[in-house]
Amino acid sequence: MREAEVRAVLVDPANGAPVILLQDRHSSKVLPIWIGQPEAISIAAALEKKQFPRPMSHDLMKALLEAAGAKLEKVIISDLKDNTFYATIYLRTADGKVKEIDARPSDSVALALRTAAPIYISEEVFDQSAIDLPLNEEEAIQSLADEQREFEEFVDKELDLAEFKRYID
Amino acid sequence: MREAEVRAVLVDPANGAPVILLQDRHSSKVLPIWIGQPEAISIAAALEKKQFPRPMSHDLMKALLEAAGAKLEKVIISDLKDNTFYATIYLRTADGKVKEIDARPSDSVALALRTAAPIYISEEVFDQSAIDLPLNEEEAIQSLADEQREFEEFVDKELDLAEFKRYID
Repeated sequence: MREAEVRAVLVDPANGAPVILLQDRHSSKVLPIWIGQPEAISIAAALEKKQFPRPMSHDLMKALLEAAGAKLEKVIISDLKDNTFYATIYLRTADGKVKEIDARPSDSVALALRTAAPIYISEEVFDQSAIDLPLNEEEAIQSLADEQREFEEFVDKELDLAEFKRYID
Repeated sequence: MREAEVRAVLVDPANGAPVILLQDRHSSKVLPIWIGQPEAISIAAALEKKQFPRPMSHDLMKALLEAAGAKLEKVIISDLKDNTFYATIYLRTADGKVKEIDARPSDSVALALRTAAPIYISEEVFDQSAIDLPLNEEEAIQSLADEQREFEEFVDKELDLAEFKRYID
């Protein structure tokens, strides 16, 4: 099992799809996972600690768990089948039991970031799909920074939209 | 308090924004609430009982509540401030207490539809914002049906996209 952190939320230049990079804490390898746009915005908002006037879906998820007395223990990117990543959420309930819940990696990461729960990658998934950042470190960081900026601009536009929607939602 | 059901998910022709119509069970009035696109797709999927290969955010929300032994008692569209609708989720926790959680109407309705929880509108919100369907009943139903079809086509496109994303998420 590898503990990981979200290194970046980027846009894949090939198809415009958002992708998160999960960085192994003990190596230079990252696991890229392509995700949906709403989840990418939610993850970016959590990383940037943006506060919305109204709770987003994952903020509500966190509030529901708190109200129910349940605690997110950890999430694991547990499996890869037919090119789909699977995640498992480990929830400690009010009576102290731990339940395992099947989830998408994107929802799991969005929720883990809000509850400060650790994110793990199973060895099997890591061995199959983790990659070295493709460039030398300096170039890679520059390239990531450029894409990160691009994504942040994109998110800012979307967040303005969300801000606008506040008035009609 | 008015019990309501989701009459339709439509696209506002003026600006392309999704809108849900909450129909009062005991009158011909509806409450229109403009919502975000991901939540509209989630509500439409619940109405059409579409099963996704992977849990969407509100499916996960339901699974988390079940695991925590908590039950959605009801949701109330409770308030309207500065043109923003507010909702309150009433959650019965495993120890029998009822907790009130602040939420957006869109998340509340998406979750209520999945858990068969009743949806209410406060009298104050209802008096302020419920409208009679603007046309005579036959025209209104025809018009709704047209827009509903348009929205379903839109959702089908999005759902195909979601289906596609399954392979990369």
